[in-house]
This record gives sequence, structure tokens and C-alpha cells, in this order.
Amino acid sequence: MNMGKRVAGGVTAAGGFMAAGVAAGVKYEGRKDMALVYSEAPCIVAGVFTSNVVKAAPVVWDKEVVDSGRDVHAVIVNSGIANACTGKQGFAYCRETAEAAAEALGIREDGVLVASTGVIGMQLPMDKVRAGVHMLAGAKADSPEAGADAACAIMTTDTVSKEAAVTVEIGGKTVTVGGMCKGSGMIHPNMCTMLAFVTTDVRITRELLQEALRRDVQDTFNMISVDGDTSTNDTLLVLANGEAGNPLIAEKGEDYDAFCQALHEINEILAKKMAGDGEGATALFEAKVIHAANKDDARLLARSVICSSLTKAAIFGHDANWGRILCALGYSGAVFDPEKMELYFESRAGKMLIYRDGQAADYSEEEATKLLSEPEVTVIADMKMGEAAASAWGCDLSYEYVKINADYRS
Amino acid sequence: MNMGKRVAGGVTAAGGFMAAGVAAGVKYEGRKDMALVYSEAPCIVAGVFTSNVVKAAPVVWDKEVVDSGRDVHAVIVNSGIANACTGKQGFAYCRETAEAAAEALGIREDGVLVASTGVIGMQLPMDKVRAGVHMLAGAKADSPEAGADAACAIMTTDTVSKEAAVTVEIGGKTVTVGGMCKGSGMIHPNMCTMLAFVTTDVRITRELLQEALRRDVQDTFNMISVDGDTSTNDTLLVLANGEAGNPLIAEKGEDYDAFCQALHEINEILAKKMAGDGEGATALFEAKVIHAANKDDARLLARSVICSSLTKAAIFGHDANWGRILCALGYSGAVFDPEKMELYFESRAGKMLIYRDGQAADYSEEEATKLLSEPEVTVIADMKMGEAAASAWGCDLSYEYVKINADYRS
Repeated sequence: MNMGKRVAGGVTAAGGFMAAGVAAGVKYEGRKDMALVYSEAPCIVAGVFTSNVVKAAPVVWDKEVVDSGRDVHAVIVNSGIANACTGKQGFAYCRETAEAAAEALGIREDGVLVASTGVIGMQLPMDKVRAGVHMLAGAKADSPEAGADAACAIMTTDTVSKEAAVTVEIGGKTVTVGGMCKGSGMIHPNMCTMLAFVTTDVRITRELLQEALRRDVQDTFNMISVDGDTSTNDTLLVLANGEAGNPLIAEKGEDYDAFCQALHEINEILAKKMAGDGEGATALFEAKVIHAANKDDARLLARSVICSSLTKAAIFGHDANWGRILCALGYSGAVFDPEKMELYFESRAGKMLIYRDGQAADYSEEEATKLLSEPEVTVIADMKMGEAAASAWGCDLSYEYVKINADYRS
Repeated sequence: MNMGKRVAGGVTAAGGFMAAGVAAGVKYEGRKDMALVYSEAPCIVAGVFTSNVVKAAPVVWDKEVVDSGRDVHAVIVNSGIANACTGKQGFAYCRETAEAAAEALGIREDGVLVASTGVIGMQLPMDKVRAGVHMLAGAKADSPEAGADAACAIMTTDTVSKEAAVTVEIGGKTVTVGGMCKGSGMIHPNMCTMLAFVTTDVRITRELLQEALRRDVQDTFNMISVDGDTSTNDTLLVLANGEAGNPLIAEKGEDYDAFCQALHEINEILAKKMAGDGEGATALFEAKVIHAANKDDARLLARSVICSSLTKAAIFGHDANWGRILCALGYSGAVFDPEKMELYFESRAGKMLIYRDGQAADYSEEEATKLLSEPEVTVIADMKMGEAAASAWGCDLSYEYVKINADYRS
């Protein structure tokens, strides 16, 4: 499969998409806190949402829209307040936000998606949200700057905004897939929530778009974790408006595979950006499992390692404490032979065999610490069982994580 | 069921048990690091061990002894080095330790249990271990002081030693159950490992002792967590030498229930001590789930709350961030109605309704912070589903946790 071509921009990279980010004063002072993604042409939409029993009001709203199969035109996002655990009032506010967007943009209210991220249990200040929606409608543009504004407006404890876009040739046409996200994780997201929005001008059926998304998240967003807490608000939406003019992708085949590859690239890039910007993180930490007995085991093993608090703290300390990694593999639920497998550390500084034959390999702690002091660190677990592989991405556990979360609401 | 009577002491409280703790210089300098528990009279032994696929050598050794049904006389424990991921050599060291103990104590080597806790992947310095075993044999005594020495010697990052004992009347005789432990957790222990040793002079069959232990850990040691990492070394042993002279407990009934109650008290006390002394902890954090649909759900819900990093960080910050608790209940795997349940915080400072009807109750943040500033904090989740209840114990997540674990091996 050919890789997509990386291009500048995010949600406005694909043809026909506009965006905006404005300071509506929902909760934060002096920064952008509301975002719009908009397409004049109707979009089909696919979505995946938090598996948490406690679902925020916008998740309930969006699931209904996605399941209905209706075309959509806009997504309204606010940061600062999650609109979760807000009862009937909270759900009514989703409708009021959609109504305001419908009025400001001249579209149907049932074609508006909403998303929120921030503190749980607080009600949205609807006057400010309504005013924000009107500001967004006035500010919307198809420029890279407008996309960047939107990406900034959805941040909470994120330290950098997160965007990416790729192009791919499908049926003689250039198809663009772009996206933005915030937060850290899908299965195990930071409470301040993972939100991701992908836009594309591909022509594809709604069924295939949903299937492509559902399949791909297993190896991308579901393989990252910052702290093991699955948010009430996690939302990943893909909007497709067909403006690329490629022959409609209505069945699996070469065109579908090419689109899936582009979607996968965007999802993986965004997922890794989230993991690397986990709260308090100083390093992106990847666990790459190879030669596992099967794909499920490979995923279990990789995720177990990047979820281990002790391993994460050791990575923060640049300490080659491989025993903790072996331990995390051991309680993952996958079966393997600790005497047969091998562990390696890898980063820009090199690659090093750390463990084999049931005990430490002959390596230099000093060299290992140097290798682990890079901003991107990978542990490779060669299970010597079969042919399956998987990667998972997380980050280290730092003082800063505790600081951010001990005092998040103040 | 009558509660047992709390008495002073730990592993030497029960009749016929001796203990010792000495500084053998295994890894730590200037502190006790080897412990002995000994009974001249032969003991039956029950045990539960880590579920980790990667098992330390002493776990493999002890499982074999427990499964064999052989009588035992002694347990030798070292701190500093875990003897995990040490290959064949590590297992050979278990045997050499048992041989040394057999020689020093005049007992059979196959009646010696061993346990280790500390750094993974390092080999034991056997000269020091052998010398330590001989020191232990010389120092052993049945005094409370000897028990306290042993409890100190098994500590790693523990900040306090952990002992408890109770007595109970069975068949007209006073039966004592006492124990010591270190570390933090069974299902989710701190990598520096949970080790717990319970001694009792009850007369009971080996089968019933094992059953009592296996049943009780589900509500005690398996309900605590410090950081979600299941150690390679977790071991809980119960030794019974029959010296109380009660009529042999060979079937279930009043006597068995009385013993189970005493065992439960010791296990719960020790488990809570471990949770409260979790690495870096400033508070013991209890999650009490009531009116759950069934016992499995109650346990799932309670454990999910005390395992949530975000909730633990909020407890450290004395922040009544109940949304994180609701979120953790939501991803626990148990099904419930967030609109119907209620949440309370409770501590020595009082009890407060925090959440009901799907949203925040009308409470004072200031009062809540005061309540959460106590050294023992409980959240009560009333699921309004049925009659099942469960408690789980953890601790807050502090800067100190990160510090300890970023730099554990140096």
C-alpha cells in the first residue's frame, strides 16, 4: 500500500471544509474555547464514542445523529466544561447549541453535532455558548489558519495543538484526509477527554466509512493511554463531503484500501500526538510487540506495558527498569514464556538488547539511560511465539501529571 | 459473628511461633533486611500467589511446597532483591536458602518457605543470604519484639511496619491469629511487592485452611490497589501449628466460621495498612459500594474507583472532583443507571451527599475539601440496584509516588 502524502493543515485541508476558533469565555479567560467545523455540502458522518456507562450529554446527542444516518453540516465544540453528569438540563443544552448553530449557519439543527471537554458536573453558560456560536459562524474560513484556530480552541490541559493532513490519489482524483484532536486516549483517555475530528472530501458510502473507522481505531486511538481512565466524553467523528469527486467508493477494493490507508495515517499521527502530549509527559513511550501468538495477544501485551504506572515512572526517570516491563507483560492476560522472549530498548540514540534467556542481557546501564533520555522511546518485546504484531503509545508519568490532576478544577 | 479481640503483636502472637529480623546486607546498608518466621511444631500451610505469568523464583518454590501438602517449619524472607527474572540460577538460590535454613534450624529443607522483595533482575548475594540465615536462627525468639524486628526487615519502600493480631474463642480454647505484611496489593500490587505472613495456633485441616484463605482474599487483599501493577512476587502464606489445642476443625460450622472471622479481621487490617502506606500516599482512600446488583458488580465498582489515577490525584489535592469517581464507576464493567445512584464522601470530619439525580447535589466545596483533608477518606456509592456491597482500599497519588518510582533502583 502506498503511503499518503503528508500536507499542511488539519480540518480545513480537505476540499469544502471551513473552521473557526473563538474566545467565548465558556470557562477559561483570555483564550479560544469554542470551535466550529463546517461544510456547506452535506456530509456523511461516522463516529466512535466512549464505552463508559456514564456518557456526557453531547455523546448521547452525537450517537443519535450518527446512528440516524442523517447528513450533517457542522460540529460545534467547547472546551472548559464537559457537559457530563448534567442531567436533563445538560441534554437540553445540546439541543439549544444545535439550534443556535442552525440559525447562525442557515442549516438544519438535526445536522449539527456537538462536543464538549472540561470539568464534569458543571452546567454550560448558555448565553456565552450561543454568542460563541454566532461568533464562530462569522469567523469561519477554509484557510489553514482557521483550522489551526479550531485546533487551539478545543485544547484543555494539552500543551500543543494537534493537526495533520494527508492526500492520496483515488480514481484519478486527489482525496484529502485531515484532522485535529485534543486530549489523550480513547480506551484509556485522560479525563479531560479525547476529542478527534477528521474531515475528508472522499466520496464513500456511510456504511464503508463507519466500517473503515471502526476497524482502524483498534490499532490507533484504542492503542494509546495516558492514565487508564476512560472519559465520559470521548468522541471521534469523521465527516466526508465527497467534494474530491472520486468515483463513489461503494465496495471494498483498491479505492477503499487507499482511503483506509490515508485514514489510518491520520488516525495514527493524531493518536501519537495525543499520547506524546499526555498530561505532564516528557516523552512519547511506544511499546512494540512482535512475534506474538495472535493479534489480540499482541494488542493486550503492548497496551499493558504503556499502561503500567511503574514503567511510566521509570521512563520519566530514564531508568532501564526492564523488570517492570516484563511484569506488565506478565499480567496482561496473554500467555507466553518469559524464558524465551527478548526485550530491546530503541530510540534515536540506538537499539539495545536488554533481556533474554530469562534474565538481564549484558548491557550498559549508562548506555541504556542515554538511550532512554530521548523524547521518543520504544520498547520492543519479541515474544517468539508467532507472527502477530501491535504497537501502543503512551507517555511517562511525571510530577507534573500529579500536579495537573490534584488541582485541575481550581 | 463475634469480632475477635485485638491483641498486641504480629507473627509471634500465636502460641509456638518465633521470629527474627537481622541486617544481612543483601542490598540495603544499615538496616534489617532478612526475616524469619519459625515454629518448632510442624505447621500446615495455605498460600495464594501472584497471578502474573512472570513469577519470581520464590513464588515457584513456595507454590510447590504449598501444593505438596508437606508440613513446614520456617519462612525465610529477604528485602532489597526480588529474585525475579533471575533464570535457573535464581531458583537454585531458593534451594540454597532452604538448605541453609534447614542446617541452621535443624529442620528438613523441604519444609522451608522463602520469599523475596525488591529489585527485579538482580541475583541474590548468596554468601550474605547464608550468613543472614544463620544470624536469624541465632536471634529467633517468641517475643513481640522479635515479631516487630521481622516486620521491619521485610519492608522496602514501606514507611511503617505492618503487624496485627487477634484472639478468638474456639471450642473453649483461645486461638490467636497474627500477621505481618509489606508493600501494597495483591491483584494490583506495588512492584515492590505485597508479602504477607499470617501465623495461627488453630487446629484445622489443610483443606479448610486453604479454602478459608482463598475465599477471604477476595474481600481483603484482592480489594486493595496502589498502582495497578501486579507484582511478580506477591505471596500470602498462612501457617497453622495447632498449638491452641482446640478441637480439630475438620468441617464447616461454628468453629470454622469463628476462625474465618478472625482470619478475615487480620487480613482486612493488614490489607488496609498496605493501602494506606502505598508509595507516596498521604491518605487511605476507601470506596464503599452499597446496594449493587450483585457481589461481582460491587467489587468491580469499588475497585475501579480506588484504581483511578485521576481520582487518586484529586484525593491528594483534597478536591471533591466527584465526576472522576462517577467516570471510574462508569468504565468498571458493571451496568447501572447514573441518573439513579448517589455519591457521598465520608471521613472523621463528617458525611456529605455529593451527587444524585444525575447531577451535583447542593454541597459546599469548602466543606467537602475539609472533609477530604483527613488521613482516611471514604466515598460511598449507593447504586440503588440491589443488596450487594463491597469495599476497596487504595491511596492517593502524590508527587512522592512519582519520585519513588522514577528513581527506585538508584
